[in-house]
Amino acid sequence: VSYPPGAPRTDPLGRVTIVGLGLIGGSIGLALRRASVDSEVVGWDVSPEARIAAIDRGAVTCAPNSLHEAVSGARLVVLCVPVDSSIPLLREIVPHLSPDAVVTDVGSTKARICAEAASVLPGRFVGGHPMAGSEVSGIDGARADLFDGANWFATALPDVNDDALDRVERFVWAVGANIRRFDPAVHDRIVAAVSHLPHLLAFALSEAAANRVPQGLEDAGAGSFRDGTRVAASSPRLWSGILTDNAEEIVQSLDEALAWLTSARAALVDSDRAALEQLLEQARAAKDRFPQ
Amino acid sequence: VSYPPGAPRTDPLGRVTIVGLGLIGGSIGLALRRASVDSEVVGWDVSPEARIAAIDRGAVTCAPNSLHEAVSGARLVVLCVPVDSSIPLLREIVPHLSPDAVVTDVGSTKARICAEAASVLPGRFVGGHPMAGSEVSGIDGARADLFDGANWFATALPDVNDDALDRVERFVWAVGANIRRFDPAVHDRIVAAVSHLPHLLAFALSEAAANRVPQGLEDAGAGSFRDGTRVAASSPRLWSGILTDNAEEIVQSLDEALAWLTSARAALVDSDRAALEQLLEQARAAKDRFPQ
Repeated sequence: VSYPPGAPRTDPLGRVTIVGLGLIGGSIGLALRRASVDSEVVGWDVSPEARIAAIDRGAVTCAPNSLHEAVSGARLVVLCVPVDSSIPLLREIVPHLSPDAVVTDVGSTKARICAEAASVLPGRFVGGHPMAGSEVSGIDGARADLFDGANWFATALPDVNDDALDRVERFVWAVGANIRRFDPAVHDRIVAAVSHLPHLLAFALSEAAANRVPQGLEDAGAGSFRDGTRVAASSPRLWSGILTDNAEEIVQSLDEALAWLTSARAALVDSDRAALEQLLEQARAAKDRFPQ
Repeated sequence: VSYPPGAPRTDPLGRVTIVGLGLIGGSIGLALRRASVDSEVVGWDVSPEARIAAIDRGAVTCAPNSLHEAVSGARLVVLCVPVDSSIPLLREIVPHLSPDAVVTDVGSTKARICAEAASVLPGRFVGGHPMAGSEVSGIDGARADLFDGANWFATALPDVNDDALDRVERFVWAVGANIRRFDPAVHDRIVAAVSHLPHLLAFALSEAAANRVPQGLEDAGAGSFRDGTRVAASSPRLWSGILTDNAEEIVQSLDEALAWLTSARAALVDSDRAALEQLLEQARAAKDRFPQ
């Protein structure tokens, strides 16, 4: 479900502070400023270079030197950091937040983060996960239209304040995305299958091909190889954190893929074309369930 | 290596007959006619509708009712049929070919086809494999520019006539692609890794996601899922033939992928983030070997 359809994407949000000015944080800033909402967009990053770049690119209106200063007075704080940094960062900023400030994040996993955040900032944390991104990282890749039309999952525990949820949904709407509310556990199950598993398979394909293709013939692949390996250019540090955080769900999705691949392998070894064709039919029917 | 660089792509080829007017055959016809070479492009397909469509779309200049008539007088015959149909078709047309006619194909596997063709048409069969295509099938998806800039693998056994190889290379050049000569066995090893394995993984991902994503939430995926499943829309009949034909090489590539996935699974189960990050680093370095 989207924010009330027809609502303008330019409702004032008050002061929004983006913590972490990489690809996602930078793109959020550009999208908010593009919306021309009557809002201040404050940014902070541990790297002074990223803060300067964010100002240069117009992604933020100001970028104080201190994190505490950056979050004080914010109505909404958006944590755009790797999943293992969100909760430590939340603990650090909570003493400096306004009493009614709301915090959200953009991490790819939600169950653990929402559970821990609920004890650090009861009722005022809403998990977020934009289904848009790139294998490119850093503010240099940031784009104002990165989230246009994308899904943006919002996850909250039952005790969340209605006002907090509403504020996050207005924010998501302002950056161009469509909100989808999920229970954090359901979220983690779905993204294990449609995001985390595709990343694992892309890494596995790259590894296999490198071991099998003779030196000098690396340009032999075409579309299926390019598409199948694209996200293997993603950051190992970022992704080891995401995958570890959602390990239980990912293993279940991975096991489904391994079961299918093991059956296909057996059909290949047995030269059993009929069995293989049946497996392909079944998987193609599975693919037909998805709109893309 | 390409056909002598700088050579015009419009050298006359004489009469070319395309047998099988689907996506690839239709696109070859459109590309040849775009090149405006002083050539006749004759087409044949088992389906009268496909023959009519090929004429309507301008992919061929004529499309006789009989296969024998279509191939008689051809300097080059291009077999654009599933891999399991190439050799039976070759046997059928050989009695009707001109004494110096050359035959090539576009199948995704080459070792078996080249070996069998060498005994049916000694010295005058050259295997071909354009690294371009689409998960869409049929002449409706045909495009004159489908092969522009793509690799087109040519494979022949050592006893092939030089003239046959030259004629096929001129043809490939005329449709806009770049020829790459390979030993058939090397070809099959490479495409197992960069084409056949990506297809298997796309089918596996579709199957896994369908089993894990709750009904009604199928639109949750984003770029990595779209790219990772795209070729799972391919034809199970066509692909069961390709995969079975190249089973030995595919199993070896698949086993490399399975070994990596099994290690990653173990790291996930053990919550061993360092081990997982190392696996991702290794696979990302593998990906960096490839230009795309």
